[in-house]
Amino acid sequence: MSALLALARSPLTSVRHRVRSTYSGAGGWLGGVLATELLKDPKTPDVNLILCDIVEPKPPKDLDPSRFVAIKADLSKADAVEALFNTKLGKPTVIYCLHGIMSRGAEDNFDLGIRINVDSTRLMLEQARACGGEKPVKFIFTSSIAVFGGPLVRLCCLACLPLPRPPHPAPTLTAARLFISQPHEVSPETITWPEGSYGCGKLIAELFVNEYSRRGFVDGRIIRLPTIVVRPGLPSPATSAFVSGIIREPLHGEQAICPIGDSFDDPALDELEVWVASPENVIDNFIIASHIDSSKMLPYTRVVNLPGFTVTVKQELEALRDVAGQETLDLVTYKKDPTNARIVGSWPRAFNNDYSLSLGFVLHDGGFKSIVQTFKDGVAAGLY
Amino acid sequence: MSALLALARSPLTSVRHRVRSTYSGAGGWLGGVLATELLKDPKTPDVNLILCDIVEPKPPKDLDPSRFVAIKADLSKADAVEALFNTKLGKPTVIYCLHGIMSRGAEDNFDLGIRINVDSTRLMLEQARACGGEKPVKFIFTSSIAVFGGPLVRLCCLACLPLPRPPHPAPTLTAARLFISQPHEVSPETITWPEGSYGCGKLIAELFVNEYSRRGFVDGRIIRLPTIVVRPGLPSPATSAFVSGIIREPLHGEQAICPIGDSFDDPALDELEVWVASPENVIDNFIIASHIDSSKMLPYTRVVNLPGFTVTVKQELEALRDVAGQETLDLVTYKKDPTNARIVGSWPRAFNNDYSLSLGFVLHDGGFKSIVQTFKDGVAAGLY
Repeated sequence: MSALLALARSPLTSVRHRVRSTYSGAGGWLGGVLATELLKDPKTPDVNLILCDIVEPKPPKDLDPSRFVAIKADLSKADAVEALFNTKLGKPTVIYCLHGIMSRGAEDNFDLGIRINVDSTRLMLEQARACGGEKPVKFIFTSSIAVFGGPLVRLCCLACLPLPRPPHPAPTLTAARLFISQPHEVSPETITWPEGSYGCGKLIAELFVNEYSRRGFVDGRIIRLPTIVVRPGLPSPATSAFVSGIIREPLHGEQAICPIGDSFDDPALDELEVWVASPENVIDNFIIASHIDSSKMLPYTRVVNLPGFTVTVKQELEALRDVAGQETLDLVTYKKDPTNARIVGSWPRAFNNDYSLSLGFVLHDGGFKSIVQTFKDGVAAGLY
Repeated sequence: MSALLALARSPLTSVRHRVRSTYSGAGGWLGGVLATELLKDPKTPDVNLILCDIVEPKPPKDLDPSRFVAIKADLSKADAVEALFNTKLGKPTVIYCLHGIMSRGAEDNFDLGIRINVDSTRLMLEQARACGGEKPVKFIFTSSIAVFGGPLVRLCCLACLPLPRPPHPAPTLTAARLFISQPHEVSPETITWPEGSYGCGKLIAELFVNEYSRRGFVDGRIIRLPTIVVRPGLPSPATSAFVSGIIREPLHGEQAICPIGDSFDDPALDELEVWVASPENVIDNFIIASHIDSSKMLPYTRVVNLPGFTVTVKQELEALRDVAGQETLDLVTYKKDPTNARIVGSWPRAFNNDYSLSLGFVLHDGGFKSIVQTFKDGVAAGLY
């Protein structure tokens, strides 16, 4: 034990971490995989884990009990958050702040959403600040593309373009129209204008993490996640659940309903684009988030839109057919849901990856077909 | 009294208001003028005032004591905020939330800044939400151009421009260079990337006012103020104080130090631009903020950059000479302060007024010379 504590407190902590993960209900699966992968990370040998969730978290298999603490806690309570920082494993050096109230939950219960997505994050930040030490604690915060408002993404460049100051000539109206006619890629500087309580809460929490980082209280890394495909598990009522469901259910030999279009040949399937990444890719980037050099980040913001790629619903289904055959594709039935299409279609459909890749984050090769193959192999191996 | 209460609770409250003003120390002068002007506003007859400040606020002259309540309170305390909403005058229908910890104060004392600029605003919002009634309370919140980061204003369009999506052609690099070589006008959609705790706190509070408005808890109007010139009163240590000081002190027959350039002929005086509006103009817009139709505002944001105009330091001094003569201008001495110039120069220098004017906000005619003349007349009349 003393050796472990020494590692955590030594000047070498930049390559030797003890890591805290807090899991939300919805993020629990992701957090569990993260814990397992952190133990394999060669850059974090001898990692200890302080795991917290609203339900008792399961520690990774075969982990020496002396190297983890599993805590069931309501992180809206100040004393519960304080307790996380005072376990037998001592102060953490890396914090993964993953817990939260997701989109629909925050919209249905405003006060709960703010209490968890904003105030609980502030409690975590205050405890992290109080850790003190030779250098600030790494505070990895997961945010969401829900911070972007649909109308805003479309308006952003129109607003920027027509207003240059003399003596520079105004860009042509044609150029401005190009931007309004089709949303451009989201860059690190694209303005955020949330349309919901979840996105607003996440954005406020992002600003706190930024400001705590600017002041040197923590070393923040804010990662905005793409839509994760294929999510394992049972079908979910979330608006975007079908993006995984139309792959996951057929690969389990079950029927799935696609809420976009009326048939496989409906042009709507080509038109709806989604910004995605595989679970394995996102988990790799969670680990990388603890290793990147934050001094190389843009000034005044610790936000990174994680790498991903754009896929149409049609391309998803074609990949399913190519990997698993026509009979598997035939398990997908179509039942148009205009509301669902509108909401998913309002999300940013493409981000520029240059900045995130320049920091060291990764984008896996192989595109969507590779994602389907990996999930199919996982099902065959009994993993999902 | 009963008649006044009826007015406040009647369906006619859209044109008959009772108004609460909360004043910060720094905003106290502005708040005092606002209270006086509200009493003259023909659109708010029979207005009652609930005035609150950290020091006992002075009620406007000749106001019937039955029509105002003056409260000394620390608005970081929940019970103090609650008390504001439970005076003999009943629930307010319009709230001017002007109090705050200014730039230097918030930077020097992080926790105090967040407690007042964020948490106290949330307490006000919660009480306003609890007012309920037939329609949400108008919540007028003053914000600041400190929400903008200098580097960001310069980077914004560069970031937007080079990333159009196929099949559209990329704008030329020349166009991108135009934008990076000179900051463009700030529009309602310009991204905010604060560089200090004051700007960050104001931005977080803006997001809360936006979200409370989107949910229908309050009817928010967020107004970002230009630099107000000429501020009356004593010289202040604020970075931007000289923008008023080089006019105010000479018009009082006193010497003033200009921290920009070495002499009246220094090109630096031409280069430094500031975004300004007169106190009278800003107060007019404070009143207008209570009358505009918020349904005409952009979706998902209640933020308005108030109208103003750009003036160079040289133009300020030329206006002083034109209005008050060479001997008055000669009271200005020059002592270059590069830090001061850098900070003031990092602020946005120009905003586009189209959106604010379209909502009904006003920009006074006459430019800077008119501002100097008004202040000179005020000094002669013993007002300042």
